[in-house]
Amino acid sequence: MEYIDDLQLKELRIIQSSQGFKFGMDAVLLSDFAARGGRIDSEYCSLSAKAICDLGTGTGIIPLLLAGKTDCSNITGVEIQPDMADMASRSVELNGLSHRIRIVCRDLRDLRDLNQTQDIVTANPPYMKAGAGLSNANPSVEMARHEVCGGLEDFVHTAAMLLKQGGSLYMVYRPDRLTDLIAAMRQFKIEPKVLRMVTPSAGKAPNILLVKGVCGGRPGNLTILPELVVYNADGTYTQELLTIYNKQ
Amino acid sequence: MEYIDDLQLKELRIIQSSQGFKFGMDAVLLSDFAARGGRIDSEYCSLSAKAICDLGTGTGIIPLLLAGKTDCSNITGVEIQPDMADMASRSVELNGLSHRIRIVCRDLRDLRDLNQTQDIVTANPPYMKAGAGLSNANPSVEMARHEVCGGLEDFVHTAAMLLKQGGSLYMVYRPDRLTDLIAAMRQFKIEPKVLRMVTPSAGKAPNILLVKGVCGGRPGNLTILPELVVYNADGTYTQELLTIYNKQ
Repeated sequence: MEYIDDLQLKELRIIQSSQGFKFGMDAVLLSDFAARGGRIDSEYCSLSAKAICDLGTGTGIIPLLLAGKTDCSNITGVEIQPDMADMASRSVELNGLSHRIRIVCRDLRDLRDLNQTQDIVTANPPYMKAGAGLSNANPSVEMARHEVCGGLEDFVHTAAMLLKQGGSLYMVYRPDRLTDLIAAMRQFKIEPKVLRMVTPSAGKAPNILLVKGVCGGRPGNLTILPELVVYNADGTYTQELLTIYNKQ
Repeated sequence: MEYIDDLQLKELRIIQSSQGFKFGMDAVLLSDFAARGGRIDSEYCSLSAKAICDLGTGTGIIPLLLAGKTDCSNITGVEIQPDMADMASRSVELNGLSHRIRIVCRDLRDLRDLNQTQDIVTANPPYMKAGAGLSNANPSVEMARHEVCGGLEDFVHTAAMLLKQGGSLYMVYRPDRLTDLIAAMRQFKIEPKVLRMVTPSAGKAPNILLVKGVCGGRPGNLTILPELVVYNADGTYTQELLTIYNKQ
């Protein structure tokens, strides 16, 4: 069954399926990180990207949030699953954003017509290798979580093809695969420039990481930002999280 | 002028030169991290290494601290600078540890006779590329801080040669060179397994990082530990730092 969620940002709404993959905090954190250019405390509108592409867009959550947080009028969401792509397209229409966002139902490994046209690529790829961890009976959830059709290297390789020289890749990923992530970025000449760990609460190990890489960037000079802490000791959201969720 | 410092650990002392390179917190954190096997809250004696080698040992601080924190009786410190190696040797004698620690004055790129003999290799290499940043009028300080004779890749390459399969490399390094560090470890088949950021105080960006890699380790499954915070908000050392410095 489908239902409509309020994104609490400029009256944006999204269609999701109660049985399917629902967006999580990862997508919200990635959109905010990208919209601020990988900096802390910077304004959203400092981002002057002419073209943004979100790889593996799912329900279209990241294009929708980026439409709300930036002025970009050329946002592409690429999704391989027809039912998900259809749902994302309907969310775009529902918000009257068809002039700024287009959803394309394509395999991200076959996007050559977009080569070197993008200022920014975002990606929240599946975290788990195919066959690792618990699999999900719902195939659309399975594909969103596992590298069934396109692994980390495919996402980074595609980003490297789509980006202009000097363009930025923003990704959200899991700490236990940081080495794979950095190795893939170096392999495809997207140099990591900003890294941020996200931790559930102070003193805990991080469970999410955000990275910004620059296509053709000079090797070295990685900035590791202060940790982003999600919860205060009393279980409430930290001020920074409230700001990211527009509830400050 | 030389003087003797008390290491506040099992009555260990170290000879340093007031004009030369003096050990810092990096060396103390690395020794503690290695002696605990890259885990938090584990006991020192859980480490059962038969042979440990410290590359670029300088004043011998890391071999001395590891002699105090472990039972290992075969610790080698390798130092290219004759005056530093001589000072380190005299510190070993001063502490009556000649039966457990030997200091060798050698270029770490020429240690083939030790191939695949070490359970643990430690390294606190120069952080800066040759020519980068401010250079120091004292050549021994210059060599300790800059990659004048042996860069990051030489350290990791040498570690890969010296370690037994399954042996561990422990390094302390700078966050802005994390990408180079991870890339070098993958290149020489030392898989990063534990990463810990050290931050001056909560909410600040990290300024030191500790890494443990396993020689021939299976790719993936990196554990990122909770941050190590050095100072409380009131400027006093945190409890964990006091424990590391044996002042709890």
